[in-house]
Amino acid sequence: MQRKDRLPRPKRAPGMTPGTLVIDPSWPKPVIQVIAYGPDQFLEKRIGDVRELDGLIGKYPVLWVNVDGLGDESVLHHLGQLFKLHPLALEDVVSLRQRSKVDDYETNLYTAMRMLYLQDGKLFSEQISFFLGSDFVLTFQENEGDCLDTVRDRIRKKGGIVCNMNADYLLYSLIDAIVDAYFPLLESYDARLDDMEELILKHPDSSSVALLFDVKRDLMTLRRTLWPVREMASALVNTSSPLITQPTRIYLRDCQDHAIRLLDLAETCRELDSSLMDFYLSTISNRMNEIMKVLTIISTIFIPLTFIAGVYGMNFKHMPELETRNGYFVVLGLMAILGFGMFGLFIKKGWLTPKRKLRRLHK
Amino acid sequence: MQRKDRLPRPKRAPGMTPGTLVIDPSWPKPVIQVIAYGPDQFLEKRIGDVRELDGLIGKYPVLWVNVDGLGDESVLHHLGQLFKLHPLALEDVVSLRQRSKVDDYETNLYTAMRMLYLQDGKLFSEQISFFLGSDFVLTFQENEGDCLDTVRDRIRKKGGIVCNMNADYLLYSLIDAIVDAYFPLLESYDARLDDMEELILKHPDSSSVALLFDVKRDLMTLRRTLWPVREMASALVNTSSPLITQPTRIYLRDCQDHAIRLLDLAETCRELDSSLMDFYLSTISNRMNEIMKVLTIISTIFIPLTFIAGVYGMNFKHMPELETRNGYFVVLGLMAILGFGMFGLFIKKGWLTPKRKLRRLHK
Amino acid sequence: MQRKDRLPRPKRAPGMTPGTLVIDPSWPKPVIQVIAYGPDQFLEKRIGDVRELDGLIGKYPVLWVNVDGLGDESVLHHLGQLFKLHPLALEDVVSLRQRSKVDDYETNLYTAMRMLYLQDGKLFSEQISFFLGSDFVLTFQENEGDCLDTVRDRIRKKGGIVCNMNADYLLYSLIDAIVDAYFPLLESYDARLDDMEELILKHPDSSSVALLFDVKRDLMTLRRTLWPVREMASALVNTSSPLITQPTRIYLRDCQDHAIRLLDLAETCRELDSSLMDFYLSTISNRMNEIMKVLTIISTIFIPLTFIAGVYGMNFKHMPELETRNGYFVVLGLMAILGFGMFGLFIKKGWLTPKRKLRRLHK
Amino acid sequence: MQRKDRLPRPKRAPGMTPGTLVIDPSWPKPVIQVIAYGPDQFLEKRIGDVRELDGLIGKYPVLWVNVDGLGDESVLHHLGQLFKLHPLALEDVVSLRQRSKVDDYETNLYTAMRMLYLQDGKLFSEQISFFLGSDFVLTFQENEGDCLDTVRDRIRKKGGIVCNMNADYLLYSLIDAIVDAYFPLLESYDARLDDMEELILKHPDSSSVALLFDVKRDLMTLRRTLWPVREMASALVNTSSPLITQPTRIYLRDCQDHAIRLLDLAETCRELDSSLMDFYLSTISNRMNEIMKVLTIISTIFIPLTFIAGVYGMNFKHMPELETRNGYFVVLGLMAILGFGMFGLFIKKGWLTPKRKLRRLHK
Amino acid sequence: MQRKDRLPRPKRAPGMTPGTLVIDPSWPKPVIQVIAYGPDQFLEKRIGDVRELDGLIGKYPVLWVNVDGLGDESVLHHLGQLFKLHPLALEDVVSLRQRSKVDDYETNLYTAMRMLYLQDGKLFSEQISFFLGSDFVLTFQENEGDCLDTVRDRIRKKGGIVCNMNADYLLYSLIDAIVDAYFPLLESYDARLDDMEELILKHPDSSSVALLFDVKRDLMTLRRTLWPVREMASALVNTSSPLITQPTRIYLRDCQDHAIRLLDLAETCRELDSSLMDFYLSTISNRMNEIMKVLTIISTIFIPLTFIAGVYGMNFKHMPELETRNGYFVVLGLMAILGFGMFGLFIKKGWLTPKRKLRRLHK
Repeated sequence: MQRKDRLPRPKRAPGMTPGTLVIDPSWPKPVIQVIAYGPDQFLEKRIGDVRELDGLIGKYPVLWVNVDGLGDESVLHHLGQLFKLHPLALEDVVSLRQRSKVDDYETNLYTAMRMLYLQDGKLFSEQISFFLGSDFVLTFQENEGDCLDTVRDRIRKKGGIVCNMNADYLLYSLIDAIVDAYFPLLESYDARLDDMEELILKHPDSSSVALLFDVKRDLMTLRRTLWPVREMASALVNTSSPLITQPTRIYLRDCQDHAIRLLDLAETCRELDSSLMDFYLSTISNRMNEIMKVLTIISTIFIPLTFIAGVYGMNFKHMPELETRNGYFVVLGLMAILGFGMFGLFIKKGWLTPKRKLRRLHK
Repeated sequence: MQRKDRLPRPKRAPGMTPGTLVIDPSWPKPVIQVIAYGPDQFLEKRIGDVRELDGLIGKYPVLWVNVDGLGDESVLHHLGQLFKLHPLALEDVVSLRQRSKVDDYETNLYTAMRMLYLQDGKLFSEQISFFLGSDFVLTFQENEGDCLDTVRDRIRKKGGIVCNMNADYLLYSLIDAIVDAYFPLLESYDARLDDMEELILKHPDSSSVALLFDVKRDLMTLRRTLWPVREMASALVNTSSPLITQPTRIYLRDCQDHAIRLLDLAETCRELDSSLMDFYLSTISNRMNEIMKVLTIISTIFIPLTFIAGVYGMNFKHMPELETRNGYFVVLGLMAILGFGMFGLFIKKGWLTPKRKLRRLHK
Repeated sequence: MQRKDRLPRPKRAPGMTPGTLVIDPSWPKPVIQVIAYGPDQFLEKRIGDVRELDGLIGKYPVLWVNVDGLGDESVLHHLGQLFKLHPLALEDVVSLRQRSKVDDYETNLYTAMRMLYLQDGKLFSEQISFFLGSDFVLTFQENEGDCLDTVRDRIRKKGGIVCNMNADYLLYSLIDAIVDAYFPLLESYDARLDDMEELILKHPDSSSVALLFDVKRDLMTLRRTLWPVREMASALVNTSSPLITQPTRIYLRDCQDHAIRLLDLAETCRELDSSLMDFYLSTISNRMNEIMKVLTIISTIFIPLTFIAGVYGMNFKHMPELETRNGYFVVLGLMAILGFGMFGLFIKKGWLTPKRKLRRLHK
Repeated sequence: MQRKDRLPRPKRAPGMTPGTLVIDPSWPKPVIQVIAYGPDQFLEKRIGDVRELDGLIGKYPVLWVNVDGLGDESVLHHLGQLFKLHPLALEDVVSLRQRSKVDDYETNLYTAMRMLYLQDGKLFSEQISFFLGSDFVLTFQENEGDCLDTVRDRIRKKGGIVCNMNADYLLYSLIDAIVDAYFPLLESYDARLDDMEELILKHPDSSSVALLFDVKRDLMTLRRTLWPVREMASALVNTSSPLITQPTRIYLRDCQDHAIRLLDLAETCRELDSSLMDFYLSTISNRMNEIMKVLTIISTIFIPLTFIAGVYGMNFKHMPELETRNGYFVVLGLMAILGFGMFGLFIKKGWLTPKRKLRRLHK
Repeated sequence: MQRKDRLPRPKRAPGMTPGTLVIDPSWPKPVIQVIAYGPDQFLEKRIGDVRELDGLIGKYPVLWVNVDGLGDESVLHHLGQLFKLHPLALEDVVSLRQRSKVDDYETNLYTAMRMLYLQDGKLFSEQISFFLGSDFVLTFQENEGDCLDTVRDRIRKKGGIVCNMNADYLLYSLIDAIVDAYFPLLESYDARLDDMEELILKHPDSSSVALLFDVKRDLMTLRRTLWPVREMASALVNTSSPLITQPTRIYLRDCQDHAIRLLDLAETCRELDSSLMDFYLSTISNRMNEIMKVLTIISTIFIPLTFIAGVYGMNFKHMPELETRNGYFVVLGLMAILGFGMFGLFIKKGWLTPKRKLRRLHK
């Protein structure tokens, strides 16, 4: 897939008239693609002037108008009038911060979704808006390039049943394509966590915290993106709008199932991530404790020995031991006994657990 | 926006007669502003004496009376009788501790909200109360100065559709302006947390805990303010009161959407804040552990060496090594071997991990 | 308010006949106060013998019988027969462990609540039971002394609308007085937590844990007391019983609002308490780490120096340095260089962060 | 109460025919006790042969058949046919792992509960099953000995209203007796936690963790036992089955109240337990930190002094101080100044907080 | 049970036509087993060619077609046409990642479940799909070998009531057999946790964290598998589909009960696991603290003694003590007094708690 730019999201001034379109000058100009089809009709073209659309309305069983780029207010207003879109829905199209949702405007149904991309290890999202009418689907995207080409191909090749169904089945096909595109993304996080578990078990390293934290943050975003998707799918299945026909609802129920599985997967990843964090923290603290213990034991053995050496380094005139012939060797011997004795005691008490025991249990 | 004062909130004695107005003498005196309008009518004036209002009622399609300052009981009682407000609702107007809510008093609808301000880094809130009747909106604020000027401008300039709609659309416009004003506030917290993540990664510092704790506290307040806003918006959309007309409900649904997005944002900030706290704590504890480890390793290397020096500082008469010509140099050499040997061993065991490894992983 | 005694709560034997009254001999004997009133009637008297009540029933629009002290079974049984109370409700009156609740017994409505007192820094609660009939309210308290005097005064002075309303408005007034009395209590905890935040920031002290733990325990009790209050208020607003009239329901809705705000306040305090606990723990652990670090740095600087001194304290015959004229001063100089060098290195590495940095960030 | 044995619970093979009774040979043989009564009838006898029951059916307003011991399949099958019990319900009677529940089999109502016992400090439970028909109650217990003797006594002595009510009131009385028996158990845990708080405050000891963990485990079991009891009580109050009459529902509502209070109590204990765990952990870690700090301060004071002693123990030929008359005393003085100076500094910095401060705050 | 292979799960390309069957070439080829029966009919055979089925449809009251292996698309399509299966349901059969669920396709009911296996200490699951028609049950499994042989045996031997019931009872029997097979699995985890508690109490070992983490991960998987099972059972009990008859619903309610108990068991295990983790962590940290304390006390006792020895090792010309006859012995005595004095003080302060105390409490 081609490289995506994350567009600037201009802020709305609080209290602005509802329905005002706030458009950033850097946004790409709209590119309009039309696919119109029916059981035995097919038309596909790129449209330069939005007014070319006027003649196409009502001519085909299903008319799909895809608009890539939102950088021209007049085009949006023209489309709004042509398809009788509510000003609030048009405002939502350009606000670019929508949660997935369904709004029923009686003559048409507005649906917002987010497409997720992982680019250079960063997760970001693009908004896609759908309008479903009785014989048209309108889609608005921030940028060119999407995951809907498989649907376009199916229409072109008359694959599947899409050409024999109404516009609502097209809406389903598009939403389904986007929902399916979440799976590889989530599975990549799942795989990353598996790798990290291996890593933590083998080389517990303080860098893992930062990585786990990054993954956690992305998973938080994912969950916040996926919860509304589930609600949206459920709203589409149960909507009272006659725009969604009964056969399509069975397909949408399948889509809702996928959304539930996605959420499940995201939750599993989140739990795994925080379990790994705990596991890492206890591993690293164990390791640190082991090191400090070994170091302290070394000091503890040598400090009493140094004391003994200090005693015989005193300059008292009268110290009988100093005069004896073997005093030095006796003291050296005593020191050796004391040192090895303490070492032995520490081992016996289990304060110096050999690492082998640990490894045996992991097999 | 002009500087706001946080007003004192006098305590109600328990068991006080319901409907009693408890007014603090330091509260500003009421300043009444009237905006009356219709598709082709417009009147705006400041009113000195509350009785001037009597003649305006019922003369305009929509009458907006805004009262800034609650420091005069007689004015409130006069308004209460004029607009047939329930004594409990008037009590709520002056209690200044309301959660956002909607109360249906049949002839009118009472709505309470809180406006949030960030002043000198402190978050505080001001209460605003709305009464919606069939042809009027009454607003009560603690202080002069608000975020509703954009709505006033729209009415003055006949911008948007506000002049062609009923009083309920004005209520929506006011609530929408206040809800929109929450966004910049929440985004400022989001930005602050982003800055802090950077800071913690670069200079983990014990001051961060206090800052994160401050932010957490504010986010707790925000969440407690925003939850009832969502409920209030939902109550307005679904109210059985005929005062809210169908077209306005579509607009209120949009407002409810914004409230949900605000809560979402607040939750994300909260999760981020506690993740950052965990991240900071594990970073700082890692750093501290590393320091203690290095220090302990230095001691551990020198304590055995000092012991050897101590041995040859003993004053025994008969210590053969002391007599040899190169004994001193041999011992110095042994000490060097032992010292560097231990140092090497610690590095080999990975107890002295070079910092470079960590940095490489962060790229 | 006068001093309250916490009464013993005798245990019910499991399997006891439902409706049995288990009364502790140490409970105070009942003191019965009657207030009977209507728009233009008023009677108040203390009653020595419970049979005096028989003649009062049905004579006044509203009859309020308040019983302080539950230590006489015969009085309770007489009241039970007189007002047709269900045996289970009477059992609840004396069990003293009720959660706030509403039970609908068709001819009357039983309501239980708890009044909270803070005495000598200990939180404890007293049970109050209400029976609402069409023209009477019966209240049972454990002890004399309550927070209902303001309501009594209002009736005596014909203040507010209480004298023109039915018995259900009296019930509301009593419940409202009790709910209002929770506010000062909760605010005292809020204030205490604010003080503790100050304290922890200035003098983090291990005693804070115990104090925070005490507050936490009280807040747990408060929350457990307030949750059922909210449910009780909601049950009263929505009850199908004709004993609660429509105008009173509007007042009860206000009471329900207060209960929600109380819960909110209690939750905020709880969150604050556990945040403070976390904040304190990380502060104290930071402080402890800083101290240990400084101490360890001192040792780490002197241990290598002591080693050098030890080397030149060895008694080898042939140690050329010892013979030189300035050897001593050269070694002293080297030690100074090494000591200050290590000190400088530790500062440069940021291991000895000056405290000033921390303070600057708190401004 | 007599000593109870925990019976073995044989495992069902997966896929076994539904309704198969899996009976362990070690279970006690059934002992059948019959109590039949009405307003003026009473019969109580132990039955040796289950067929004796056939003649009793339908002869008394209420027939209570209590079966202690499930170790004989033929008896169970006979009872099943006699009282028209569903095979699945009989299977539940012997599976001994039921959660409390109500199953409506139209002609009768199956209810399962668990009786809890604390024996030798271990918590364990025994299953009791009830079948309610229009004129009979059947109870099945694992073992002889229960908490239902008070109910038996009430029937024998015609105490309470039980003899004038239908079989459903008997069911209520039995369930109520079991629910009431939970209270002393929970209160014993509450008391134990109070004792432990005292203990932790006075002698924080590492053994407390294990005790708190044991209590936590029991409280987990209690909560899991009590949640279904609440659901069961609520199911009985709201069941559509005509077997439960209206007057009994009022009594069952009381029982439901008790179940809610039990859960409340269990939750309070759980929260208390984990608060105590946190409190203990921070107390013990404070204590440990204090000890380590004192020990480290001692080392830190003496290590620099030892260094000075080491310097003057060097054997350089030319060390002017050594020659002076008072050098030794001057150095000793310097050491004292340095030692006490460091000690004073540590106290001034608050690193050696006296314990008194802590105690003062606890009063 | 024979060894199971975990099959590869090929990924679906996002946007693929709904209803496409993605089949991995390594999957085993379908093996079809037919069991057809009625009250007095029985037929069992293995079928080589799927077209042999055509003649069997509608001939028997119940026809159970079991397909082991999904590696042949044409077989699946043939079955799909024969039994009128919805393309989306067939897609679910081969996707192998379904959560347990019920989909109502009017002419038939699709049910998915997962069978869990513990092989070489690893938990993995196999998908099983059911289609219920008015007179047939179709089951699809990934592999040969399952836990349904007991059901087959019951049909063969005309055991239980299965032969007299409709196809829905067969569906229940199969689901019940699978649900029952979860119990031994969960009980094995429960037993493992009991063993670990013992282990942690006796030999707290850093390997336990990894084991507890493994168990936690499996329990997370179990919970995620069991939640949907509960929902599925509840959906089957309450479905509006006429394919499930009333008598079978009573059996399914029993199955739902089992699912609830399974979830309960899984939750208990999870809580136990995390309690054990906490318990282990505090045990290990206590132990580590004890060790460090003992080691530090040893150093603390000897460092001041070494200082004294150092003082008398100084080479000052004039050190009066050195000249005295008994100076050496006096100093040795002082050292002994100081050393034992500090040791005694530490014991008195309770810093060296004997281990016996701890053990006594555990009895």
